[in-house]
Amino acid sequence: MNKYKIPFNKPFITGNELEFIQDAVDFGKISGNGKYTQKIHRFFERQFGFKKCLLTTSCTDALEMAAILLNVEPGDEVIMPSYTFVSTANAFVLRGAVIRFVDSREDHPGMDENKIEELITEKTKAIVVVHYAGVACDMDKVMDIANRYNLFVVEDAAQAINSYFEHEDGIRSPLGSIGHLGTFSFHETKNIMAGEGGMLTVNDDRFAERAEIIWEKGTNRTAFFRGEVDKYGWVDIGSSFLPSELNAAFLYAQLMNLIRIQQKRMCTWNRYQKGLEGVCKKLGILQPNIPDYATNNGHMYYLVCRNSLQRNELIAYLKERNVLSVFHYQSLHISKFFEDKHDGRELPYADLYSNNLVRLPFYYELTVEEQDYIIDAINNFQEVETRRTSRVTCLSHHVEQVV
Amino acid sequence: MNKYKIPFNKPFITGNELEFIQDAVDFGKISGNGKYTQKIHRFFERQFGFKKCLLTTSCTDALEMAAILLNVEPGDEVIMPSYTFVSTANAFVLRGAVIRFVDSREDHPGMDENKIEELITEKTKAIVVVHYAGVACDMDKVMDIANRYNLFVVEDAAQAINSYFEHEDGIRSPLGSIGHLGTFSFHETKNIMAGEGGMLTVNDDRFAERAEIIWEKGTNRTAFFRGEVDKYGWVDIGSSFLPSELNAAFLYAQLMNLIRIQQKRMCTWNRYQKGLEGVCKKLGILQPNIPDYATNNGHMYYLVCRNSLQRNELIAYLKERNVLSVFHYQSLHISKFFEDKHDGRELPYADLYSNNLVRLPFYYELTVEEQDYIIDAINNFQEVETRRTSRVTCLSHHVEQVV
Repeated sequence: MNKYKIPFNKPFITGNELEFIQDAVDFGKISGNGKYTQKIHRFFERQFGFKKCLLTTSCTDALEMAAILLNVEPGDEVIMPSYTFVSTANAFVLRGAVIRFVDSREDHPGMDENKIEELITEKTKAIVVVHYAGVACDMDKVMDIANRYNLFVVEDAAQAINSYFEHEDGIRSPLGSIGHLGTFSFHETKNIMAGEGGMLTVNDDRFAERAEIIWEKGTNRTAFFRGEVDKYGWVDIGSSFLPSELNAAFLYAQLMNLIRIQQKRMCTWNRYQKGLEGVCKKLGILQPNIPDYATNNGHMYYLVCRNSLQRNELIAYLKERNVLSVFHYQSLHISKFFEDKHDGRELPYADLYSNNLVRLPFYYELTVEEQDYIIDAINNFQEVETRRTSRVTCLSHHVEQVV
Repeated sequence: MNKYKIPFNKPFITGNELEFIQDAVDFGKISGNGKYTQKIHRFFERQFGFKKCLLTTSCTDALEMAAILLNVEPGDEVIMPSYTFVSTANAFVLRGAVIRFVDSREDHPGMDENKIEELITEKTKAIVVVHYAGVACDMDKVMDIANRYNLFVVEDAAQAINSYFEHEDGIRSPLGSIGHLGTFSFHETKNIMAGEGGMLTVNDDRFAERAEIIWEKGTNRTAFFRGEVDKYGWVDIGSSFLPSELNAAFLYAQLMNLIRIQQKRMCTWNRYQKGLEGVCKKLGILQPNIPDYATNNGHMYYLVCRNSLQRNELIAYLKERNVLSVFHYQSLHISKFFEDKHDGRELPYADLYSNNLVRLPFYYELTVEEQDYIIDAINNFQEVETRRTSRVTCLSHHVEQVV
């Protein structure tokens, strides 16, 4: 499959994945909400202090659960960044919501927290923050706005496992535990994976009971299994949000290695950051910025090029060297689906990251040698690019490096 | 887990499941729409002639795709049986549909095709048929009604893999290929399983392109991978309907053994049918009826008791003998969620099957010895029951068998 020497992403097995899947079969249950699902719920509730966790088939589905739980209805307005995955918006559009998109920050692809308040109207129901690259939004600022206007906050923490926000008082809260609801992804591109998968965190007790019902196709089946009702039936809207034990068993094996995976990913991240410092400065490329109030969970390594030409050249250049780097989201406010629904505001930073951001290969099994090959290649790109932009002074030196 | 000697259901591994999962990891893709997903699509398209297949995370999700594809909007009416799984209805309720429930047939738990037409109004958009126990509804009758009133037909074929409807002209069509759209389940209780899983079949070309978009979160990503567009983006509503390759790899291993699995299941079904014939006649219990126009795919073996007392006693009696038998759906029209939305019609046969139907253990690895144990137990139940209902004549014979 990988025609690239170095793919952008690569799933991996930490050790016990297949053994746990076999165990789920032997145990007699591979549909949802079996013992591995419950182990994962307990793990997250204990390790990260989420009040209630419900594993889902995807982060998309967790976001859809959030939209249902918040009773989002046609005409309700939901505020979220434009620079995000389509599911952040689709989950609320499916319930009839009107989306009000916010621009990204100048110094980070995440949503500009200072531009939220101006979008609030009487119809606003919720703010959905996205912790881009696992790096926290300023949650003190967001929660203050939400509290003042009585709005719900959903944290789209798809990329943010094991990452934290440091409050002004110095206390650190895990991302996904601060808003009323949080959503995670275990897609194969994430730090910890189930192939496809996600999780809803319920941090406000008001939603806990109904969340279980919506999760179980609108039935009170979970209460039935706990012996709280005699028989279960249809009591609410809902869907089949719960994943198979096959996925849960795979995910649990990965979770058991969370510390090891995170250590390795942080080494990879830091090696990119250090190894590319010089070339980025010379070429006017921006490296990731981690605000003081945020931690880094080593989810993703990206560069923000000077312009789309430079970005696309860098991607093509790496591709020629058998390295697959990729761009990321396309601003949702100018998508084909949404452009005629948008209110016309320009969101220049969302567009900037759409056009200029490039993600470098990042996965657990990426070796130091492979990473050095990528870093060296980008340093060579420096020279080609410098030659092109400063042709007069550099031509004699670099002509032999023309590809 | 199994405190019962004989559980109601038991997942199984046919041979290559774990090997295929390992292969998917090695191949570098365990998210959705990888090589195993595509193998499964091709298998079903070739083996059963479905025009287009899209694997989903559940049959619920396939039904939700159907509701989105049909543009079901608030106020649209959808006709379906009351005796069905909540997801049949929930998928359409999530889009705002008004559900009009139809009673079951006297001779079968499936929907009474003669009671559909009287429910059609100007607002009716679709008929959803459910092939209960994998046994076809009279699809000639249903399609005739749909054509006359210009309605869409969705076949909820959750239980109906490898089952057929025989048209009046003698031609056999696989279930799921006759309506405009069809949905299947690969839940662990189904003949072929992925833990959780499902599939949408698209039999009307008008829906094919949009189905792919809705499947891929409302993006044209599938067209992008085929090289039909330069970059992909948000073009429609949608969700993350595609399952992980972990589930697809597991399912594909099972599909490779479809013939063997089906042969074994038919033996199990026939053994129940023959072994229980006498006791059922004596106790007034009905055995499954397969109409002339339907085939039997050995999905489920059920009995319809004389009343709920007899049914509940039979379940309790088998439980005491470490055999787990279970009842099935609860009529949706009298559910807590729907009762105040129902139009007040009585649906006596839906209620009859809710109250009187019992499903016996049925899974691939059920041995002949285990099955004979169950059959013998039920024959013993005959004697206990006969004693109780005909106390005067039987007491002297059966007093030693009182439990």
